Amino acid sequence: MPVSRTDRSSKPRAVTTRNTLLASFELVRAQTEKLALPLSAEDCALQSMPDASPVKWHLAHTTWFFETFVLAPHMPGYAAYDPAFRVLFNSYYETVGDKHPRPERGLISRPDLATVHEYRAHVDHAMRELLKHDVASDLAAVIELGVNHEQQHQELILTDVKHLFSRNPAKPAYQPRWPLLPVRPEPLRWHGYAGRLDWFGHRDRRFAFDNELPSHQAFVAPFELASRPVTHGEFAEFITDGGYDRPELWLSLGFDAVRTLGWRSPLYWEYRDDAWWTFTLHGMTEIDPHAPVCHISYFEADAYARWVGARLPTEFEWEMAARDVPPGGNDVATGALHPLPAMGQADASVPGQLYGDVWEWTSSSYAPYPGYRPAAGAIGEYNGKFMCNQYVLRGGSCVTPASHIRATYRNFFPPEARWQFSGLRLARDIR
Amino acid sequence: MPVSRTDRSSKPRAVTTRNTLLASFELVRAQTEKLALPLSAEDCALQSMPDASPVKWHLAHTTWFFETFVLAPHMPGYAAYDPAFRVLFNSYYETVGDKHPRPERGLISRPDLATVHEYRAHVDHAMRELLKHDVASDLAAVIELGVNHEQQHQELILTDVKHLFSRNPAKPAYQPRWPLLPVRPEPLRWHGYAGRLDWFGHRDRRFAFDNELPSHQAFVAPFELASRPVTHGEFAEFITDGGYDRPELWLSLGFDAVRTLGWRSPLYWEYRDDAWWTFTLHGMTEIDPHAPVCHISYFEADAYARWVGARLPTEFEWEMAARDVPPGGNDVATGALHPLPAMGQADASVPGQLYGDVWEWTSSSYAPYPGYRPAAGAIGEYNGKFMCNQYVLRGGSCVTPASHIRATYRNFFPPEARWQFSGLRLARDIR
Amino acid sequence: MPVSRTDRSSKPRAVTTRNTLLASFELVRAQTEKLALPLSAEDCALQSMPDASPVKWHLAHTTWFFETFVLAPHMPGYAAYDPAFRVLFNSYYETVGDKHPRPERGLISRPDLATVHEYRAHVDHAMRELLKHDVASDLAAVIELGVNHEQQHQELILTDVKHLFSRNPAKPAYQPRWPLLPVRPEPLRWHGYAGRLDWFGHRDRRFAFDNELPSHQAFVAPFELASRPVTHGEFAEFITDGGYDRPELWLSLGFDAVRTLGWRSPLYWEYRDDAWWTFTLHGMTEIDPHAPVCHISYFEADAYARWVGARLPTEFEWEMAARDVPPGGNDVATGALHPLPAMGQADASVPGQLYGDVWEWTSSSYAPYPGYRPAAGAIGEYNGKFMCNQYVLRGGSCVTPASHIRATYRNFFPPEARWQFSGLRLARDIR
Amino acid sequence: MPVSRTDRSSKPRAVTTRNTLLASFELVRAQTEKLALPLSAEDCALQSMPDASPVKWHLAHTTWFFETFVLAPHMPGYAAYDPAFRVLFNSYYETVGDKHPRPERGLISRPDLATVHEYRAHVDHAMRELLKHDVASDLAAVIELGVNHEQQHQELILTDVKHLFSRNPAKPAYQPRWPLLPVRPEPLRWHGYAGRLDWFGHRDRRFAFDNELPSHQAFVAPFELASRPVTHGEFAEFITDGGYDRPELWLSLGFDAVRTLGWRSPLYWEYRDDAWWTFTLHGMTEIDPHAPVCHISYFEADAYARWVGARLPTEFEWEMAARDVPPGGNDVATGALHPLPAMGQADASVPGQLYGDVWEWTSSSYAPYPGYRPAAGAIGEYNGKFMCNQYVLRGGSCVTPASHIRATYRNFFPPEARWQFSGLRLARDIR
Repeated sequence: MPVSRTDRSSKPRAVTTRNTLLASFELVRAQTEKLALPLSAEDCALQSMPDASPVKWHLAHTTWFFETFVLAPHMPGYAAYDPAFRVLFNSYYETVGDKHPRPERGLISRPDLATVHEYRAHVDHAMRELLKHDVASDLAAVIELGVNHEQQHQELILTDVKHLFSRNPAKPAYQPRWPLLPVRPEPLRWHGYAGRLDWFGHRDRRFAFDNELPSHQAFVAPFELASRPVTHGEFAEFITDGGYDRPELWLSLGFDAVRTLGWRSPLYWEYRDDAWWTFTLHGMTEIDPHAPVCHISYFEADAYARWVGARLPTEFEWEMAARDVPPGGNDVATGALHPLPAMGQADASVPGQLYGDVWEWTSSSYAPYPGYRPAAGAIGEYNGKFMCNQYVLRGGSCVTPASHIRATYRNFFPPEARWQFSGLRLARDIR
Repeated sequence: MPVSRTDRSSKPRAVTTRNTLLASFELVRAQTEKLALPLSAEDCALQSMPDASPVKWHLAHTTWFFETFVLAPHMPGYAAYDPAFRVLFNSYYETVGDKHPRPERGLISRPDLATVHEYRAHVDHAMRELLKHDVASDLAAVIELGVNHEQQHQELILTDVKHLFSRNPAKPAYQPRWPLLPVRPEPLRWHGYAGRLDWFGHRDRRFAFDNELPSHQAFVAPFELASRPVTHGEFAEFITDGGYDRPELWLSLGFDAVRTLGWRSPLYWEYRDDAWWTFTLHGMTEIDPHAPVCHISYFEADAYARWVGARLPTEFEWEMAARDVPPGGNDVATGALHPLPAMGQADASVPGQLYGDVWEWTSSSYAPYPGYRPAAGAIGEYNGKFMCNQYVLRGGSCVTPASHIRATYRNFFPPEARWQFSGLRLARDIR
Repeated sequence: MPVSRTDRSSKPRAVTTRNTLLASFELVRAQTEKLALPLSAEDCALQSMPDASPVKWHLAHTTWFFETFVLAPHMPGYAAYDPAFRVLFNSYYETVGDKHPRPERGLISRPDLATVHEYRAHVDHAMRELLKHDVASDLAAVIELGVNHEQQHQELILTDVKHLFSRNPAKPAYQPRWPLLPVRPEPLRWHGYAGRLDWFGHRDRRFAFDNELPSHQAFVAPFELASRPVTHGEFAEFITDGGYDRPELWLSLGFDAVRTLGWRSPLYWEYRDDAWWTFTLHGMTEIDPHAPVCHISYFEADAYARWVGARLPTEFEWEMAARDVPPGGNDVATGALHPLPAMGQADASVPGQLYGDVWEWTSSSYAPYPGYRPAAGAIGEYNGKFMCNQYVLRGGSCVTPASHIRATYRNFFPPEARWQFSGLRLARDIR
Repeated sequence: MPVSRTDRSSKPRAVTTRNTLLASFELVRAQTEKLALPLSAEDCALQSMPDASPVKWHLAHTTWFFETFVLAPHMPGYAAYDPAFRVLFNSYYETVGDKHPRPERGLISRPDLATVHEYRAHVDHAMRELLKHDVASDLAAVIELGVNHEQQHQELILTDVKHLFSRNPAKPAYQPRWPLLPVRPEPLRWHGYAGRLDWFGHRDRRFAFDNELPSHQAFVAPFELASRPVTHGEFAEFITDGGYDRPELWLSLGFDAVRTLGWRSPLYWEYRDDAWWTFTLHGMTEIDPHAPVCHISYFEADAYARWVGARLPTEFEWEMAARDVPPGGNDVATGALHPLPAMGQADASVPGQLYGDVWEWTSSSYAPYPGYRPAAGAIGEYNGKFMCNQYVLRGGSCVTPASHIRATYRNFFPPEARWQFSGLRLARDIR
């Protein structure tokens, strides 16, 4: 959940045209509302755990971003929809002032959902007014950031609703239709890479978050990367082999989590009638053994890799492999909203499913790139302050917007987090 | 929150007529829905703490009671509205089977509020069908119990919504209109009572919960009782005198609570602009110094009494004083939804405000009366199993239905509970 | 753990003679040190849970009592052994000033045990000097209180060491010798009592704690009391019958404790090789089915009684039965340090084992007697402030000093406490 | 707290001669006992927090290591001193079998200290017997590991006793004598380093832990490193400037810790009489403004660096700077047991105080080096399983044995740990 693009190259960055900006703004706002369409006011109001937020909060907070960082400082005469929202929908910007405590987001029945939609319309209207005129490149960059920020929350709307619905004994479906394709199982192959000193991080003029910068050198030793993520079926074998009972497979903190939290399988799995089932955005379903496993923690990913005698890739290894692979795959646009089995890909010379399906845990602790500097002001609070005790995930998932995925994108979560669509891909040394 | 009436007298109890039963059933159902009218679907879905429940849950659980204990066993061919509700809306009847965990009642966005209203209509319809014919006296007693049970939840709807709204920074009002009457402050007087061996508990043929039974003898020494409850203004003086900083005034567990929970005033009080304000069902308002103090724990009641050199009454003292006082006072029917100052009462020879305004903490631990036996079956789980580490409150409050109050009624809460309309009345020994 | 004797009779109490006082002081001091004899410096330094205290702390705190309440205020020129001890060994007297936090008593390696023994000698010496002269009756009463206070801590030394040793995987014995007598099992009989209004509480001129006062009237309905406490063997049947899995047998808070704390048997029990064993002050031993069960909570006592269709006695019922029974039984002087089977008693017309063996849980919440007033000053902090959420136990145990037991003595613990020698005796109504 | 040396070079490692081994064994055993000399049996038995262990446990656990990994498998006929110790003094080796829970190490009064000294003598005797004959190089490596392992626990003996004594209101001194030298304050200078691809990790034939291996390449960009650690006086300025109240200076988790744990200064600091004091192994003392600050968390180190516009070095930057600096400095051998001010060093061309004084937090997450493989068997449990949510510290401290420090040594603790002698040295980019 990174933020601010900070182009440190000496040359000025071309201003995104006003029309392009407006189009991407309109698109992202419409997409967010489309995601909320199947949900009732009550669905949107509840918070199922401190890590998750109510959908209503996501709808409001993404709007707050444009009001606080674009309209309030840059649009003369702009009247805030409701001054109280400045505190109520602030996520964690200490610089902006007070904020409503995160674990209490689920206590806010008012403003109701209809009011939040009015708030969105109010801000959308003002944004359209603003974008009738050219905007300075700095402001354009903030708007572009707001659009990318809202995409992040689109993904969270789906992961958070999934968690909420999973806690309901009726296991309701977000989208009953189940548009999954026929399975073509694919054997796992290994792709080798020579070691070298190389450049990593974002380098071109398109948007990136500040944590992808600056581009810098790092040395990578020779390695191999698996042709696809680990599957539900493979992970079930790990369980059958007593994986959750064998401390020697686990990081010490990981086995503590197993014991303390009672983990016996990935999140959302249930064993019924001699088979593993899992909760999806389409309701409960038997696991598809060929689909990439998801909703596992870093600890489970790491233990699985140790069990098969492999390891997680570093984020640099992953980036080196993904760099030349064209985007595309099972992202939110396919409507599957669940990882899909490997399909047999056009170009078998590169690993498949790098983009979409599941976020892939890497072994890299989330840390600043050498020379990293956060953006100035409140927007700079976005990424740097979270660079501790979290691990990097790469590649996007089945609920990520397509335009939000790229080879240098760094997602990050604490090692015990499981409610994201997080899986793993194996790596190993070449000696 | 007691339950089952168990008449142990040898003579059969007159059967409440079918028409009377139907009328009281219709009335209580309509009153409950009237209470929910000012609330949105979102207001009804949220749970602000484990002790409180969502209004939607109260609406459904009271309905579940009639479905589970009346319709399912006694109406041939009755089809449950939704079999899953048997678990979902079970409060704590272990005998009935599984129950949904109380702290997770706020995770249930579905069934939505509209569905719960349909559920109510479905059960109401069946109850009307059932009551087209005579019912056995046993069944009539269960229905009467269901009506009284629903009245208890009416009170909880108001206390729980008040707590929820208090956690919203906007401090919304449940009912904006503030129908409070002009103040006629009344000096505190003392009413004396001779000591004697007397009978306590419920004795006539009207409805009572099982914890009011059996009628039994107890000895009461001579005592005096205050003419009215302690007021907001009097309690503010206790605060000013450093009451919350003086361990010698408190029970040991009480001072632990003060320190651990950071209590500096009753629940809902805030100090602003040199004055005490409190949150009410009408929004934030400056405290009325003449109105009975409420939202205090047993610990605060006990400490206040020690500070003024008095004590809490026992439940027997309270009952002895209330026994001959006719019902009436500021109950939910007045619409005040907040305690009111003493009004100057018709009969100054007895204490005022015994009924309504605030539940009055007594010094009596909640325990079974000698010879107490819970009802058989699930209904008997109601009262007995809570008889530990709770204290008895008497007299009803400004949010209690009028017909739910009587001299023998025993309410009970743990000594740290504050979200009920709980206050105190002073007593002292005569030597 | 009550304290201050407060004689409210109008007539002055006869002054205990100086020699008697000195003798009882010398005796209690010597007995305490004898209890510590089998223990190493390390045994005396550790604290195994917040409820327990290190033996070293007990040795010092009982000494602190005499220094603080007798020597400092009443002996001219008395020099405190170490002024820091005033805080360090204060238990909970807020009025005396700061106190060291209870859960941190086990962090005090210095003063070491030798120093604490010097501290004891220093105070003993000064006390002997003081008692070379007559003392006023007020001061004599405080000294008598200190002697009784030290007896309470003698019992705690044994219960706390037992708990500490039970946490050591080697299960060391406090006293290896096992002086238990041959078993003469005794069938349970019932003793009936007529109901009546009667006087309860301490009435004569001997020492009593303030919570036994004042003598007052209460009404007791007809009841029966068992001839002996419930035994280990009887309790094992309750376990075999699934007692810990049947919520209908338990108070709601009790079953919460069962689930949360994982109770499957009384404290210290272990199931090995098809038999129940228990940890004693003599080490691990197979349970004696005829010996009174101990180390059970109020919740377990209450559930057991419900299981057999009986109930716990009230403290007044217990006192009525015990009033005319002469003291004596298996107290600390027998050296058994564990409850013993019923022996066949001299007078079969009264219940046996009322004194000694196990403290017997009553159904009475620990509350002030009508007209109760704590002593003035710090000493008055002893009892009153604990009168909440605790239950009364009667009769003393196998680790209580003989002279510390009497019919009116009220011990009290929270309903979940299990590390005392606490058991139960059944009662039932006569109708 | 790393372990197993794993030499992966193809050539066999020269066998340490038997005599050298014996000498280093004897030395380390004697040094450990010397550290325990000023401590009583009670000092050695207590545990002041779950992170710390009793000194008695350290004395026994280091002995357990030799018994379990050397004598039991390799000395024919060796009789364990007490078989129960195998479980009791196992730290966390799951492979060795059960282990006594870490937070309960302070509940073990028996075996007492004298017995643990006998246990040490028993094992020492057997080790001497064993070393009368040549041992295979594998076994020699395990013994060498045991010696290094015991050195780690020597440091922990001092940090854990310091913590224990700090919790005693009397603030006892471990060593009253205060052998500190006169102060020669030294201004902070910067040492520059060119960027390059270089080799890191242990490369020669001397002992190293497995986490220092294998030697591997990494790229380091140009940087500067401070000539000395940050001092107590400099850190006091950070406090004065409101450092603990300014969220923008902190990692998000760090500011959570500040709020939750109430941090207002480094551990052990107290503000008295207008000055900062700190607890040391010599008792309470006013802070020396010129001595390196210690007992700060990673969070505080990071926040301080941000406050002055610098950053923490990576572990590779630190190693690059330290590589050619000869060992020496204020280690445990000086007896200061507290960091000392910069002294003016022989060679001003390199940074000072890299070794000794305080462990220096680096910004590097504790992770395996590329190609890392833990040792086989139980010994391999030592390092790898802790490589999560910890940060690397370098350089040793004032309580580290001199022979235990080297340029490649990687110590590691969670970012909130403060009871070690942990400080920081600033770094910054060269652009």
